[in-house]
Amino acid sequence: MSSSKNPSSSLHEKAGISPPEITNVAAINQIKKNRRQQPSSAELIDGILNGNITSLSRAITLVESTNPEHTAKANEVINGCLPHANKSIRIGITGVPGVGKSTFIEAFGSFLTQLGKKVAVLAVDPSSSLSHGSILGDKTRMEELVKDENAFIRPSASGDTLGGVARKTRESIILCEAAGFDTIIIETVGVGQSETAVHSMVDFFLLLKISGAGDELQGIKRGIMEMADAIVINKADGDNIKKANQAKLEFNRALHLFPPKKSNWQPKVTTCSAITKDGISEIWDTISQYFVQTNESGFFPEKRKEQNQFWMMETINEQLKLNFYNQPEIISQLEQNKKAVQNDEISPFTAAQSLLSVYFKK
Amino acid sequence: MSSSKNPSSSLHEKAGISPPEITNVAAINQIKKNRRQQPSSAELIDGILNGNITSLSRAITLVESTNPEHTAKANEVINGCLPHANKSIRIGITGVPGVGKSTFIEAFGSFLTQLGKKVAVLAVDPSSSLSHGSILGDKTRMEELVKDENAFIRPSASGDTLGGVARKTRESIILCEAAGFDTIIIETVGVGQSETAVHSMVDFFLLLKISGAGDELQGIKRGIMEMADAIVINKADGDNIKKANQAKLEFNRALHLFPPKKSNWQPKVTTCSAITKDGISEIWDTISQYFVQTNESGFFPEKRKEQNQFWMMETINEQLKLNFYNQPEIISQLEQNKKAVQNDEISPFTAAQSLLSVYFKK
Repeated sequence: MSSSKNPSSSLHEKAGISPPEITNVAAINQIKKNRRQQPSSAELIDGILNGNITSLSRAITLVESTNPEHTAKANEVINGCLPHANKSIRIGITGVPGVGKSTFIEAFGSFLTQLGKKVAVLAVDPSSSLSHGSILGDKTRMEELVKDENAFIRPSASGDTLGGVARKTRESIILCEAAGFDTIIIETVGVGQSETAVHSMVDFFLLLKISGAGDELQGIKRGIMEMADAIVINKADGDNIKKANQAKLEFNRALHLFPPKKSNWQPKVTTCSAITKDGISEIWDTISQYFVQTNESGFFPEKRKEQNQFWMMETINEQLKLNFYNQPEIISQLEQNKKAVQNDEISPFTAAQSLLSVYFKK
Repeated sequence: MSSSKNPSSSLHEKAGISPPEITNVAAINQIKKNRRQQPSSAELIDGILNGNITSLSRAITLVESTNPEHTAKANEVINGCLPHANKSIRIGITGVPGVGKSTFIEAFGSFLTQLGKKVAVLAVDPSSSLSHGSILGDKTRMEELVKDENAFIRPSASGDTLGGVARKTRESIILCEAAGFDTIIIETVGVGQSETAVHSMVDFFLLLKISGAGDELQGIKRGIMEMADAIVINKADGDNIKKANQAKLEFNRALHLFPPKKSNWQPKVTTCSAITKDGISEIWDTISQYFVQTNESGFFPEKRKEQNQFWMMETINEQLKLNFYNQPEIISQLEQNKKAVQNDEISPFTAAQSLLSVYFKK
């Protein structure tokens, strides 16, 4: 193809009157001006407690910021919201790509808002900073829910570490709950340890599966099945119904092999279709039943307390390690110590002690 | 019962000539004198490399000591032994009390020494400091092996933390290997996280079970089955044979449900009797097969390198936490922060940050 202009070509456009602006410049300037006027933390708290979605979004943006000033402000907002959070059920949903997580959340979330629930959908996806939002990034996959005024959808925070992403999501949960969302859905994909992180911040953990050919249970990541409070076999429609029921049997048999959970909850296996909506209401029945049972036994509030404490300790441990491994003296010696240990030149304990004495001598 | 002496009682013993000492006082004094003359670390290394069991025992005692002087000397000995360790196979054995671990190790260990192997049996049992040695404490349960000159049995080190006990056992492995023991058996019971610790220090992990009535798989601790390279159903003799074979079938089916291991090793289920010795040689065949397969694939040496590195990092993390939580300022503030976090008065992250800023300001 030639890149030179050909004036006789019909593709050549004659100079003429500019088309009218398709956007309202005055309105844009007003929006920009409003953006510059950052509300105070008191204003944000007030807005959130009044269910203002703009305040909620702004506060989450502060939580996600790496700017220390924003972090300080975010902490003020979170601590102001805390006494008003906690009245909710937090549901973790995991499943490998292709299992239909987005369509399931769309169907399940819409079902819940029709029940009068207010549903917030968040995500933990540490890979999203690389892939620029693989899950929930494309809100168009939740067409109905995104327009629903009783639903709030927010893509995964980005961050270098799972710990960072998890912290941001956990703080966002508090903000959503203070804004009146009573059902929090946390989506995750099986990347690294993200399921474990999500499991530590939710009340109920749901594993989404589809039926495949042959052995249904192969390929489930270690430990995931032990975490599940429910396994839902999605896409149980049309020709798939028979296979889905077969998969349900297999999963039930497999779950039976695990020791009883601390919650005394017997995990349930059900089938559903995000298209025909079959089985969607049963999932909510299961979760409600879990909520009642574990509240009666006292497990539910106890688990939340434990989770709070877990996140405090986890943050401390992470920061201690971060500080240690970021010291220039440690960085310069760590690799050679690792190599010496790998090659059995010094014992792991001597190597650790030598690094620790460098660190604590400072 | 009266405590006053009754001279007319036949229980009254008349004064007479003392019976001869049943112990040789001169010999005892010689032993005590020898004990006081602690050998140097060079002498210990030399003794260990020559297969001297007294040197080995003394070095392990140094490893287990909490005296900092002993620790320094122990480190010298370990680092001197390291280049001569590593030529072995390390086998972890776990199973709940009653499964017959001691009799199994007695039978298996004796089988191995008859093959010309040198077998060291160590243990990780963090509960032993409370119960004063619940496993391996009673050497009489391994009557044959304890007299075998090609076997070395050492009860679990005691310690306040699993980390401490695990470190001591791991260092003892190095010493045993340097002393020429080529098969190291590490026994553990399902207390806390002790299986995970043992799994991180062995090449091959064996789960010992017995067949019971009904569902064989219930009651297995979470994660244990995923760690196992072999499951051995013990006490498969007499009337038990049929039940043991049934259990074997069930375990085989259950193992099939797990995803493939990183080692590409397909875990084996066998039955055995520590009494009739049936199945004992098959267990060694399985372990040998694992050894060949994972050496050929390179997994075996790679795993050992990873384990070395793991223990270095683990020691660092443990020490960082220990230092943090032992600061008087942290101790005095931790409990109130925990409580505030549990009651949702402050967020876990704010609580962590406030403790961290106290710690790092020092």
